[in-house]
Amino acid sequence: MTLPTTARATAPQILARCRELVRPALREAVQRLHPWPAEMAAFSLGWSELGGRAVPGHGSGSGSGAGSGPGSHGKGVRQALTLLCAEAAGASGEGAVVGAVAVELIHTFSLLHDDIMDGDETRRQRASVWKAYGTGPAVLAGDALFALAVETLADSRNVHSGKAVRHLAGTLNDLVRGQAEDLMFESRPWAGPDAVSPQEYRSMAGHKTGSLLGCAAALGAVLAGAPSSTVDALAQAGRHLGVAFQAVDDLLGIWGDPQVTGKPVHSDLRRLKKTYPVLAALATEGPAARHLVGLLTSADPLDDAAARRAAGLIDEAGGRAATLIEAHHHLDRARRCLESVPLAPAAVDDILTLLPYLVDRRM
Amino acid sequence: MTLPTTARATAPQILARCRELVRPALREAVQRLHPWPAEMAAFSLGWSELGGRAVPGHGSGSGSGAGSGPGSHGKGVRQALTLLCAEAAGASGEGAVVGAVAVELIHTFSLLHDDIMDGDETRRQRASVWKAYGTGPAVLAGDALFALAVETLADSRNVHSGKAVRHLAGTLNDLVRGQAEDLMFESRPWAGPDAVSPQEYRSMAGHKTGSLLGCAAALGAVLAGAPSSTVDALAQAGRHLGVAFQAVDDLLGIWGDPQVTGKPVHSDLRRLKKTYPVLAALATEGPAARHLVGLLTSADPLDDAAARRAAGLIDEAGGRAATLIEAHHHLDRARRCLESVPLAPAAVDDILTLLPYLVDRRM
Repeated sequence: MTLPTTARATAPQILARCRELVRPALREAVQRLHPWPAEMAAFSLGWSELGGRAVPGHGSGSGSGAGSGPGSHGKGVRQALTLLCAEAAGASGEGAVVGAVAVELIHTFSLLHDDIMDGDETRRQRASVWKAYGTGPAVLAGDALFALAVETLADSRNVHSGKAVRHLAGTLNDLVRGQAEDLMFESRPWAGPDAVSPQEYRSMAGHKTGSLLGCAAALGAVLAGAPSSTVDALAQAGRHLGVAFQAVDDLLGIWGDPQVTGKPVHSDLRRLKKTYPVLAALATEGPAARHLVGLLTSADPLDDAAARRAAGLIDEAGGRAATLIEAHHHLDRARRCLESVPLAPAAVDDILTLLPYLVDRRM
Repeated sequence: MTLPTTARATAPQILARCRELVRPALREAVQRLHPWPAEMAAFSLGWSELGGRAVPGHGSGSGSGAGSGPGSHGKGVRQALTLLCAEAAGASGEGAVVGAVAVELIHTFSLLHDDIMDGDETRRQRASVWKAYGTGPAVLAGDALFALAVETLADSRNVHSGKAVRHLAGTLNDLVRGQAEDLMFESRPWAGPDAVSPQEYRSMAGHKTGSLLGCAAALGAVLAGAPSSTVDALAQAGRHLGVAFQAVDDLLGIWGDPQVTGKPVHSDLRRLKKTYPVLAALATEGPAARHLVGLLTSADPLDDAAARRAAGLIDEAGGRAATLIEAHHHLDRARRCLESVPLAPAAVDDILTLLPYLVDRRM
């Protein structure tokens, strides 16, 4: 059975349909946690306020609320990818809900722990979990979500759950590797032989963001019982989407509208974060790149004027254009992966509708 | 094939034999990590100093080094239990090494994250990982070990690895629940209707310590292909051993020799930690218990004299004796579990040799 789909649904409609399918199982999973990590998980998922009070519109059954906030988390891109890939492999989305739940739990875990490591005090226009509940409790909540994800998938009655767990486990290792690489970039210089290359950044983004979107896609196919060629092609498509996604996040971190991103203008620049636009600009080694190095090494953190000037220099050196090209290159590769194996056309249409929507968001 | 065992091996010999069997696979697993979390993991496992320099005697192939430090981690109780339970179920210990590795990795993960949550600055007479490397990196290293444990078991060629992963996943959830319960005890009062009861403490210890020893035992049996009755009996024995173990740790946290435990004298009391001896003493509600409440609520943290006086009152109220009885009660129940199913006698002999050794340690 395939899910009832409206012909030519819009991207927000596709995402909403998938969120509605996943939400009851996701809530049921979170409710299995000890009440304390469950409260922190609900806060992190945008379901409740600090202290546990429910956020209006995020009660069970409401289709309009979840996902209206900024950021990819609220949209439910990963869970949608799992369901759509199951449908693309000729099965129902329902059978892959357990995979979508596992992927959302892991995504929430990684946001939670990454915010601790990165010292990020806000997430989706609210306090991050460690800021709201304390570092120790946030570590605990992340661990709880991690464990819950593995248990949810391992305990599933789907006959392919063993293979799905192996995919998830490999992804978890990639995620941690990507986070380690990203954190180690912080201590590297802006220029010279030890500077971070755009290629190193690409590899990090592949681990940190590509792996989970690749896993989301793979789990849909695996739980649908698809042959390895299909699983591999969809996983590869998901990974490319993830890298494209990261490139767009990097653009938004510099030029995004604070009203939409929920972060201060130039936030990544102020924090001297080594993102693709900056690294691509520096790699040109031209006059703008040299000015940029001077600026980036002059103060920590950058003030308003310096951040504005840095953003201008990145643009001038071609870093902004290079990042957009990078995003669209990976989108194209994702599309080619989808064409490389036989898939159910309606689900592929939905995936193809999502791709540009996710990359063109808020630009 | 069963491992060559010396008839009537001593507990240290049994533990050393198991550590030697597990060490190469454990090292190989840790080496698969990104170099940064790998260095923190090696530090945590006692293999290297801060900065990565190898600790003498902990090189590969050395049988004498690992495990000579204080604390259960160095002894390798969990890994030994996995191998011995595989042997008890009639298989070789070698076939269960992957389970022993997973259990040691999870144990290391939990020490690492628990030290962050509990604010413990030392572990095994050295700085804890968060103190040595920083909180963010320690969160990352814990996540890396967690992910590695799941991947190691999921990727194993053992035909029972799927069932083993399900056991591990359930255990991870129990571990997190136990840690949440323990942390929540901190904000509960020492007396009155909201005080923590010895029974609540028992339940927490079952989750926090019993679950991983139960899992260690279960994985040995599962990977040996044992029937559920055997898996259940050995898992139950492991859980009882874990609760006994925790009771002894609680005694050592108050009356242990700092030279041996690596912690200051009365360390748990100074930190006003709600452990079994204190809770059992308070539950008597006699004169000593009332004096004890007064002392515990008077200062935070306790000074030397107050901690010494509190230790005396706990003993006077019977808290020390009750904890020893609790430990021996769970040891007896562990022994009865071992008698309840048919098992290989030589391996059972080894397990029975370990039990009193682990509980009578350093008392």
